[in-house]
Amino acid sequence: MPRVSPPRIAITLGDPAGIGPEIIAKTLSTWHGPSQPLVIGPVAALAQAMARLGIYRELVHTSLESSHSRKPDSNTITVIDTGTGAPPPPTGIASAAGGAQALAALKLARKLARQGMVDALVTAPLCKEAVRLAGSRDFIGHTEFLATADRPVRMMMTCPRLTVVLATTHHPLADLPGLMDGDGIFDTIRLTHDALLRAGGRSNPRIAVCGLNPHPGEFGPEESEIIAPAVERAREAGINADGPHAADGLFGRVGAHGTHDAVVAMYHDQGLIPVKLLGRMETVNVTLGLPFVRTSPGHGTAFDIAGRGVADPRGMEAALAAALHWVGAPRAREAAG
Amino acid sequence: MPRVSPPRIAITLGDPAGIGPEIIAKTLSTWHGPSQPLVIGPVAALAQAMARLGIYRELVHTSLESSHSRKPDSNTITVIDTGTGAPPPPTGIASAAGGAQALAALKLARKLARQGMVDALVTAPLCKEAVRLAGSRDFIGHTEFLATADRPVRMMMTCPRLTVVLATTHHPLADLPGLMDGDGIFDTIRLTHDALLRAGGRSNPRIAVCGLNPHPGEFGPEESEIIAPAVERAREAGINADGPHAADGLFGRVGAHGTHDAVVAMYHDQGLIPVKLLGRMETVNVTLGLPFVRTSPGHGTAFDIAGRGVADPRGMEAALAAALHWVGAPRAREAAG
Repeated sequence: MPRVSPPRIAITLGDPAGIGPEIIAKTLSTWHGPSQPLVIGPVAALAQAMARLGIYRELVHTSLESSHSRKPDSNTITVIDTGTGAPPPPTGIASAAGGAQALAALKLARKLARQGMVDALVTAPLCKEAVRLAGSRDFIGHTEFLATADRPVRMMMTCPRLTVVLATTHHPLADLPGLMDGDGIFDTIRLTHDALLRAGGRSNPRIAVCGLNPHPGEFGPEESEIIAPAVERAREAGINADGPHAADGLFGRVGAHGTHDAVVAMYHDQGLIPVKLLGRMETVNVTLGLPFVRTSPGHGTAFDIAGRGVADPRGMEAALAAALHWVGAPRAREAAG
Repeated sequence: MPRVSPPRIAITLGDPAGIGPEIIAKTLSTWHGPSQPLVIGPVAALAQAMARLGIYRELVHTSLESSHSRKPDSNTITVIDTGTGAPPPPTGIASAAGGAQALAALKLARKLARQGMVDALVTAPLCKEAVRLAGSRDFIGHTEFLATADRPVRMMMTCPRLTVVLATTHHPLADLPGLMDGDGIFDTIRLTHDALLRAGGRSNPRIAVCGLNPHPGEFGPEESEIIAPAVERAREAGINADGPHAADGLFGRVGAHGTHDAVVAMYHDQGLIPVKLLGRMETVNVTLGLPFVRTSPGHGTAFDIAGRGVADPRGMEAALAAALHWVGAPRAREAAG
């Protein structure tokens, strides 16, 4: 039987010493989406941010067992408290306490998402250094923490006019030629295709693939030996992909004329420069390849302005809207599930 | 005595089989700049384009000796005919005839510019393959043809919201780490500074310098060992430069908030992706380091649409406007000359 209930979205509070509590409070105080998100984290930090901002909403506590048992409304915020009862750590500073609280919320959120209790996870920024201070020395980032070893994941960055998925993420430029890998590029195209299908819209979404070098074909050999065959393999699998394209002209065509629904970029700056330029504060990070949707604002904890009430909530609002978008319509979710 | 006459600008017709004649005819038929540009090339091709477009202007022939002897007005276009008397080559095809005619115009324009007979050169697109067909097998491009061995030149790409100068131009990505060179980066910053000063505006123009790697400082060693010292050397020379910056965040700040007057990018796609995305048809290529200003539209000969009357003249209009801008005010030209 198709699942027709609105998507269930959890938001992790991130590092309580950063702007996470503030931007979540601001976002939920004006939220009119189809469902009320569930906030997971040290609730004392959220309450403190709301008090500082003069935002009044009843915090309705829930638990794993009773999740969503009381119907939420616009006067309430539903929360699962993962705090220890201790007061929030000092605002604006990386601390072991802040890192531990951020990680506790993320662990519970991961559990709920893997159990299928929520459809999407929106993660407010945490501080990797603080998580490491808290003893988790091997913590790399949200994406790695949420992934499992058996499924490839990819970083998508998206804004209203441009969606980009990276074939490689954080590497020295000198390593990129050696990282070009046909299977990896094919996986990137396939995950992009699956995400676009799930989000609805076009039935054969158009995916443009960048070259690694400027003027692909003039240099190489990565384009002819690795990227073009990966695009061809995707086409043989029924995916509407083309390329490799010269990246300097491509993003203008996609951004201004919508020639494609998404662009697969070969490396960090090639993909993130154009999407951050077009999307600014509304650029959202989406992790592809997880069994649930995960989005986050494109910015960090912003310790320098935390607690002052001036943090811009547009990144969080966009991340929440993106979570709804990429979860897809109920029918698409059912088909994909 | 200061030179107060308006800047003298020459336009080369480019490959007569491409869209050069058409976009020049369209541009000059509505041109209201401070001076009437001098068109250099096979005039038969310009006349043919004007006839096809229904544009009527008297073509006033001049020569090296009598240049600008008759005062031009809005009903005329001043030309130096470098054609051979032969009819224009077939439109839309790369041919030896077209290449030879494009090169002849460029040679004369270079001579006039080096002699100081014109202040700026606007070059319509030519076809490198056609120039090579015409026997100039070592022809690389406009920039190399106009440069002299003793002075470094750099490629600037500019649009109303963003100006980018490249430290390196057309190279395989794999070669970039080896091409990072402190002197070359310093020269790029210095040429950018000189150009911004000459164009007027801010007395201490702000120049942002990109890193080579994503998240500069996290990887390296190019940022700490090469780029940062080049920026420091520029600052010691009194240039208002900063960096290296993470490129993915930088272009949004510069493009949206004007935090800097120009960005020095380390490589082709890093710089051209954002400026072409923002500037689209109005992106102009400016060569820095020549003893005269040289600009060109960001596009090519567009053989596929040549002769059909549909070519968009905005690139040529922008290149002409950019020539005036980068030549600078009369006082700046006098001081810099």
